[in-house]
Amino acid sequence: MIRKMCWTADGKLKTNLSKKEMTAVLKDPQNLLWVDICDEPYDESQRLLSEDFKFHPLSIADALEETHIPKVDNWGEYLCLVLRSINPDQDLKGEVKTDELDVFIGNHYMVTYHSVAHHALDRTWQWVLKDSRTADGGAPALLYRLLDEMADDFILMADQIDLILSGMEDQLFDNPDSSLLEELFTYKRGLLHLRQIIGPQREVLNKLARGDFKILGDEAKMYFRDIYDHFLRLYEIIENLRDLTGSTLDIYLSVVNNRMNSVMKTLTVITTLFMPISFLAGFFGMNFFKPGEGMDFWTSGPVYYVVLAIMVLFPVAMIFYINRKGWLK
Amino acid sequence: MIRKMCWTADGKLKTNLSKKEMTAVLKDPQNLLWVDICDEPYDESQRLLSEDFKFHPLSIADALEETHIPKVDNWGEYLCLVLRSINPDQDLKGEVKTDELDVFIGNHYMVTYHSVAHHALDRTWQWVLKDSRTADGGAPALLYRLLDEMADDFILMADQIDLILSGMEDQLFDNPDSSLLEELFTYKRGLLHLRQIIGPQREVLNKLARGDFKILGDEAKMYFRDIYDHFLRLYEIIENLRDLTGSTLDIYLSVVNNRMNSVMKTLTVITTLFMPISFLAGFFGMNFFKPGEGMDFWTSGPVYYVVLAIMVLFPVAMIFYINRKGWLK
Amino acid sequence: MIRKMCWTADGKLKTNLSKKEMTAVLKDPQNLLWVDICDEPYDESQRLLSEDFKFHPLSIADALEETHIPKVDNWGEYLCLVLRSINPDQDLKGEVKTDELDVFIGNHYMVTYHSVAHHALDRTWQWVLKDSRTADGGAPALLYRLLDEMADDFILMADQIDLILSGMEDQLFDNPDSSLLEELFTYKRGLLHLRQIIGPQREVLNKLARGDFKILGDEAKMYFRDIYDHFLRLYEIIENLRDLTGSTLDIYLSVVNNRMNSVMKTLTVITTLFMPISFLAGFFGMNFFKPGEGMDFWTSGPVYYVVLAIMVLFPVAMIFYINRKGWLK
Amino acid sequence: MIRKMCWTADGKLKTNLSKKEMTAVLKDPQNLLWVDICDEPYDESQRLLSEDFKFHPLSIADALEETHIPKVDNWGEYLCLVLRSINPDQDLKGEVKTDELDVFIGNHYMVTYHSVAHHALDRTWQWVLKDSRTADGGAPALLYRLLDEMADDFILMADQIDLILSGMEDQLFDNPDSSLLEELFTYKRGLLHLRQIIGPQREVLNKLARGDFKILGDEAKMYFRDIYDHFLRLYEIIENLRDLTGSTLDIYLSVVNNRMNSVMKTLTVITTLFMPISFLAGFFGMNFFKPGEGMDFWTSGPVYYVVLAIMVLFPVAMIFYINRKGWLK
Amino acid sequence: MIRKMCWTADGKLKTNLSKKEMTAVLKDPQNLLWVDICDEPYDESQRLLSEDFKFHPLSIADALEETHIPKVDNWGEYLCLVLRSINPDQDLKGEVKTDELDVFIGNHYMVTYHSVAHHALDRTWQWVLKDSRTADGGAPALLYRLLDEMADDFILMADQIDLILSGMEDQLFDNPDSSLLEELFTYKRGLLHLRQIIGPQREVLNKLARGDFKILGDEAKMYFRDIYDHFLRLYEIIENLRDLTGSTLDIYLSVVNNRMNSVMKTLTVITTLFMPISFLAGFFGMNFFKPGEGMDFWTSGPVYYVVLAIMVLFPVAMIFYINRKGWLK
Repeated sequence: MIRKMCWTADGKLKTNLSKKEMTAVLKDPQNLLWVDICDEPYDESQRLLSEDFKFHPLSIADALEETHIPKVDNWGEYLCLVLRSINPDQDLKGEVKTDELDVFIGNHYMVTYHSVAHHALDRTWQWVLKDSRTADGGAPALLYRLLDEMADDFILMADQIDLILSGMEDQLFDNPDSSLLEELFTYKRGLLHLRQIIGPQREVLNKLARGDFKILGDEAKMYFRDIYDHFLRLYEIIENLRDLTGSTLDIYLSVVNNRMNSVMKTLTVITTLFMPISFLAGFFGMNFFKPGEGMDFWTSGPVYYVVLAIMVLFPVAMIFYINRKGWLK
Repeated sequence: MIRKMCWTADGKLKTNLSKKEMTAVLKDPQNLLWVDICDEPYDESQRLLSEDFKFHPLSIADALEETHIPKVDNWGEYLCLVLRSINPDQDLKGEVKTDELDVFIGNHYMVTYHSVAHHALDRTWQWVLKDSRTADGGAPALLYRLLDEMADDFILMADQIDLILSGMEDQLFDNPDSSLLEELFTYKRGLLHLRQIIGPQREVLNKLARGDFKILGDEAKMYFRDIYDHFLRLYEIIENLRDLTGSTLDIYLSVVNNRMNSVMKTLTVITTLFMPISFLAGFFGMNFFKPGEGMDFWTSGPVYYVVLAIMVLFPVAMIFYINRKGWLK
Repeated sequence: MIRKMCWTADGKLKTNLSKKEMTAVLKDPQNLLWVDICDEPYDESQRLLSEDFKFHPLSIADALEETHIPKVDNWGEYLCLVLRSINPDQDLKGEVKTDELDVFIGNHYMVTYHSVAHHALDRTWQWVLKDSRTADGGAPALLYRLLDEMADDFILMADQIDLILSGMEDQLFDNPDSSLLEELFTYKRGLLHLRQIIGPQREVLNKLARGDFKILGDEAKMYFRDIYDHFLRLYEIIENLRDLTGSTLDIYLSVVNNRMNSVMKTLTVITTLFMPISFLAGFFGMNFFKPGEGMDFWTSGPVYYVVLAIMVLFPVAMIFYINRKGWLK
Repeated sequence: MIRKMCWTADGKLKTNLSKKEMTAVLKDPQNLLWVDICDEPYDESQRLLSEDFKFHPLSIADALEETHIPKVDNWGEYLCLVLRSINPDQDLKGEVKTDELDVFIGNHYMVTYHSVAHHALDRTWQWVLKDSRTADGGAPALLYRLLDEMADDFILMADQIDLILSGMEDQLFDNPDSSLLEELFTYKRGLLHLRQIIGPQREVLNKLARGDFKILGDEAKMYFRDIYDHFLRLYEIIENLRDLTGSTLDIYLSVVNNRMNSVMKTLTVITTLFMPISFLAGFFGMNFFKPGEGMDFWTSGPVYYVVLAIMVLFPVAMIFYINRKGWLK
Repeated sequence: MIRKMCWTADGKLKTNLSKKEMTAVLKDPQNLLWVDICDEPYDESQRLLSEDFKFHPLSIADALEETHIPKVDNWGEYLCLVLRSINPDQDLKGEVKTDELDVFIGNHYMVTYHSVAHHALDRTWQWVLKDSRTADGGAPALLYRLLDEMADDFILMADQIDLILSGMEDQLFDNPDSSLLEELFTYKRGLLHLRQIIGPQREVLNKLARGDFKILGDEAKMYFRDIYDHFLRLYEIIENLRDLTGSTLDIYLSVVNNRMNSVMKTLTVITTLFMPISFLAGFFGMNFFKPGEGMDFWTSGPVYYVVLAIMVLFPVAMIFYINRKGWLK
C-alpha cells in the first residue's frame, strides 16, 4: 500500500496524488510531501524510490532489506534513517519483536517504508491529517512527531516489563516455580534485543540533536534533543531491567536453596528421632530374649518400662535439642 | 501553593507580592526574586511560567511533567534544571523514593517547581529568610544553598543504608533468615534507583562547576565545584553499597550452604551409627534362631555378649573415625 | 597454486599471464591485476612478493607467517591487510576455526595470500570473472566485494550458532543433560575466539570506511562503510551470543538444582511416611510381648486394631500435611 | 598541638617560633616554613589558617571538616590537598582505617592539618630535622618526602593483605572454616575502602606530576611522577587483591561443595550397603516362619547359610560396584 | 658479571674492554656499545652507571631497585626502560615468575641490568655476536631484537598455559578432582600477574612505536610497531585465558553438582525400594501373630504368598516408575 499526503505552498492538503502530481509537487520546495510505503512488492518500491526520488542505490538497498541496526546516513540532499519501533500491544509471553522503519527525509519531503502495519506511524499520520500545524514545521516536524510516538511506545513497553518483573520477584519469594524461570529467561532475551536496538537508535538521535545534518535546519535540534533525552532514559531503564533479571534469578536460586534446606532438615529430624529408638526396638526383638534362655531379666517388666520411657523421652529430648539448633524454624 | 520572596535593590525583603508587584520586580535586574510553586494545578503553573516569565513552552513542559532523569538545559537567558531530591525521613523498609524538583534560574530570579513538600527546599527557604547574606550572592547563591541541602539529604540517606547493610551482614552470619534476603533485594532496587538519579545529577553539577553557563557568573563556579565533589563522593558510595549488597548475598548463600552442610553431617552421622547395628539386631531377630532349631550356639550367652559389645563399640569407634574426619565440628 | 586475473586498459580479460606479461601489466596503472596465491611454498611466494611487487620485507613476513589478529598497515603505495575469514560449512561440534587471508592492495592491483582454500575468495573470483563491471571500480571494488562475501560468511555462522543456542536452551528445560554442557562450553570458546577476531577486523574496516588511506580513493569509502556496518552488527551479535551462553549455563544450573530438589523431596517423603510406622512395627516385635510374659494386654486384639489403624492413618495424615507444604508438586 | 619548623634564608633551623616570628618568617619568600597542626580545637586551627595564612574560607572548611575523598584544589597562591594515609601498624582483623591529612602548600611554606597522630608525617618531620638537604628543595621537596612516606605505608599494608589472603587460600583448601569467611568479607570491605581512597589520590598525584600547578615549579614534576608510579602500582595491586578475594570465595564454595559431596557419598554408601540386607533380616523375622507353621523349609539350615552368604557377599559386591563408580575416593 | 660488546666505527667487534677503553668508545657517537650488568653488587653497578654513563640518580635508583611495573622514562639523551620478561622453562605448577630487566638506551649505546640470568637477553647477545648486521641498525636495532626475543618467550608461555587449561577442561568433565581446582587457582593467580605486567609493557611499546622518543630515530618506529602488535595480541590472549579459567571453574562446579545429583538419586532409589518392604517385613514380625493368639489367618500360607508377591512386585513397579522419571540415567 502506498499512501501520499501533500500540503501545497498555500496550505492546502491533498491525499490522493497521481504519480504525475507527485512529481510536480516534488519540484516545488514550498510544498511538503509525505509518502508512506507499506508492504509493497520489492520492485514497485524500488522503482518509486529510484525513479521519482532519485535516491542512491545503496540507500535504497539499505531500506528495502532488513538492516536490524538503526543508523542514519547522510546522502547530502536527504538523510536515510533506519529505525526500529515496537508494537506495545504484542504478547509479552513470547519474544519481544521490533519492526524496521526506514525513513528518507529531504528538504520538503519524507518517505517512510515498512513491511508491516506500524502503530506509531499510523497515529502520526492521523494526527497530521487533523492538525495542519505540524506541517508548518516542514519535514523535520513530521519526523519529530513520528519519533516522539515511537519513543512513547518503547517507554510503554519498558514500563510493562518493569511491572511484570516486579510481580515475578514477589511471586518467587512465595513460590519458586520453575516455569517462572523459563519466562524470566524469555524476558532477558527480549531485553538483550531491546538494548541492541536502543543503543544505536539513541546514537541516531544524538546526531540529529547535535545538528550534524544541515538538511534538518537549526530549529529542529531542540526538538530532537527532547527525544534524545527519552531514548537516553530508555537505555538506562533497559540496563536497569537487565540488572533486575539478574537479581530475580538470584532470588530464585536463594529461595530454592532455602526450600531444599528445609526439606533436608525435615529428613534429618525424622531420621534423628526414629532411627535410634528403632534400633532399640530391634535390639529387644533379638532371639536371645526368649523364654527359657536364661535372659529373664532382660524381658522382665522393669526393663520394659525403662525401655518404654527411653522410647518416649529420647525423641522429646531430641526435639528440644534440635529446636535449640534452630532447625524447626 | 505559590510563595514568593524578593529582595529589592536596596536590600529589603518582601514575601507577599501580588502578581503586579512581581512583574515590576522582574523588570529590574537589581532585584532578586524567588518563586516557589508547590502542588499547584497544571494550568495555573503553566500560565505563571509562560506569561510572567516567558519561558519556552518545551522547558515548561519538561518542568510540569515528570522527567525522572536530572538534566540542565541552557535556554540563553535562563537555565532549566530538572533535579531529584530525597526525603531522608522516609521509611527505608519500602522502596526508596526520590522527588522531582524543577528549577528555572535566570539573572536575578529563581523559580522552583515541585509537586510534593520538599524538605531541603523548605530548609533553604527558612535559612534565606533569616540570613540575607545568601541573597547577596544573587540567584546562583540561592541555587548553591538549595543544592547543598539536597546533597546533605542524599549523603544522610546513603549513610543510613550503609549502616543497615553492615548490620544485616552481621545478622546473616548469626542467622541467615530468608526475610533478610527479601529486605536486601529491596535495598538493591533502591540503590539501582539512586544510581540512576545521581549519575546524571552529578553531570548537571559538573556542567555548573565547569562554568558552562554564563548566566551564573564566574564566582559561583567554585561553590558548585564543592557540591560536585559531594555528588562525586556520593556516586562512589552508592557504587560501593551496590557492591556490598552483592557481598551480602554471597554471605547469605555461604552461610545457608554451611548450615545445609551441618544438617547433612548430622543425618549422615546418625545413619552411620545406627544403621549397621540395627542390621545386627535384625539379624538376630530372624527366626532361624528359635529354641529347638539346632542353632543353640547362635543364641547362647557368649554370642550375646559379643553382640552387645559390638553394638556398644561400633558406634564409639565410628564416633572417633568421624571426629577425625572433622564432621563433628 | 598461483592464479592471475588481469583487465587491460581496453577492458579485455586475461587469466593466464606469464611472469613477463605480469611485469608488463604492472607497469601500466590503467591495467587491473589480481594475483591469488594459495598454499604455495614459502620461498616461491616470498620471491614473487619481493621481486615482482617490491613489497617491504616486514609486510611480506607479516603475510607469510600466521599473524592471528586482523590489522591494516599503510606502506605508502600499497596497503597490507591481515584478515580472517570463516568457512561456514565447518562442523560446529568441534572448535570454531577461522582462516587467515592476507591482502596487498595497491593502486591497480590486489594480491591475496592464503594457505587453505578460501570459499569467500573463490566466490568473489568467479563473480569477477563473469561480471566485468566489478573491475570497473578498480582495486578497491575487488576488495569491497571480497570483504562483503567474508562478512556474509561470518553472519551466516553467527545465525547458525544463535539457532543452536536457542535450541539448547529449550532442550535444557526439558532434560538437563551434562553432554549439552560440554557442547555449550565448546561454543563459548568459539565465541571468545570469534570476538577476538571480529573486534580488530571491525577496526580495520573502520579505518577503510573513514578514508584513512588515500590509495583507495574517496568513492570507495561509502562501500566500506557498508561493510563496516555489517561487522559492527556482527560484533554486537557475538557479544549477545556470549551473554546467552552465560544465561544457558544459569538455566542448566537452575534446572539441575530443581531436579535435585525434587529427588530430595521424594527421599524425604518416603522416609517421613515409613520410618515412624516401621518403628511401631519394631516396637511390637520386641520380646516383652511373648505369651506368658504377663503382657497379654499389649498383644490383645483391640491393641492390634489400634496399631493397624495408626499404621494406615499416620501416612495418610502425613500425605495431607506434606501436600499442604507443597512438596508433592 | 601545633609545631613549627623554619629554615631561614641563611640555612638556620628554628623549631620554636612565636606567632610574631612566624608572621615575620612568612613575609620573606627566602624562608621555608612548615607548620603542623595536630588535634587542635576547631576555632584555634581556623584562626591560624585564616588570620596568619589568609587562606580562603572554603579551603579552610574543606581542611577542618572530614572530606573523605582525596583532592587537590588550586587557589592561585597555594594548593589545598586533601589526602588520606594509612597506619600500617593497625590491627587488620578489624576494618581498615585511613586517616585524613590536609595540606596547604605555598611558595615557601607548607601547613599540614590532621586530627590523629600521623606516622608518615612524624617520620618525615624527624627526617627533615636531621637532614637539611631536604629543605634545600623548598616546599615541594617537603611535600614529596611526605607523600613518599605515605605511599610506603600503603604499599606495606597492601603487601600484608596479600600475604594474609594467600595464607587464607591455602588454609581454605585444608579446612573451609566459616570463620575464615567472615574474615574474608572484612578484608573485602577494607579493599573496597582502599580503592575508593587510592583512585582519587592517584589522580591528585597525576596532576602534581603533570605539572598542572605553577606554584610547585618544574623541577618537582619528576619527583611527583615517581610517587605517581607508586600509586599507579598500588591501584593495580588493590584491584588484584579484590579479584583474589573473589577467587578465595570461589575456593571456599568449591571446597564446601566437595565436603558436602563426600558427606553425601558416605551416607549413600552406608544406606546402600545396609538397607537391603536389613530388609532380608526383617524378612526372616516375620512370624510366618514359626515352628509348626509348615514353613520348616524356610527356617532350615541350608536356607540359613544361603542367607548368611547373601548378607556377606551383597555388601562386598556393592563395595566393588561403588568403588568402580569412584565414590570411595 | 659485567660484559661489554662494542663495534667501532670501522665495523670491528671488541668484547673485552677495559674501563678506559669503554670511556673512549663512549665519546665517539660512531661507535656502538652494549654493556650488560648481571647480578653485580649494588655499589659496583651504581658507580658504573653514574660515573661512566652519568645517568640521573633517580633513573639509576629505578633500575637498581625492583620496580615491578614496566615503564619508560625519557631523560633527554637516553631512555630508561623498566621491562619484565618471563623464563619459558620455569615449572608452571608453581607461581608464574617474571624477571625485571632494566634498559638504558642512548644514541649509540645500550646498558642492560638484571639480577638473574636472562634467557632472551642471552639469545640476543649470541645472535648479535654472530650477525653484525644487527649492529648496523644502531642501538634501536639492539633493543628491537631484545624485545622481539622477550615477546617470543611470553607468547610461548601463554600457549603453554592455553594447552594446559584445555587439557584441564577435558579432564574435569571426566573426573572433577579437587586437586585440579587448586592447580586452576594457581594459574588464575599467574594470569592476573601476567596481565599486570603485559598491560604496562604494551603501553611502553606503544610509546616506542608511536615515535614519542627522538633518540630512537624514525626508522625504528616500524619495527617497534611490530612488537607492539605482538604484545597487543598477547594481552588479548591473557584476557581470553582468564575468561577460560572462569569457564573451567563453572565446568568444575557443574560436574560436581551433577555427581552429587547422581549420588542423591542412588540414595533415594535405594530408600524408595527397600523402606516400604522393610516396613512390611517388620509388620509381620510383630508379636500379635503368634501361635495361639487367634491371628492364625494372618500367618497362614495364602497371606504369606501375597506378602511375598508384594515384596517382589513393589520394587519392580517402583523401578519402572523411577525409570520413567529419568532417575536411572
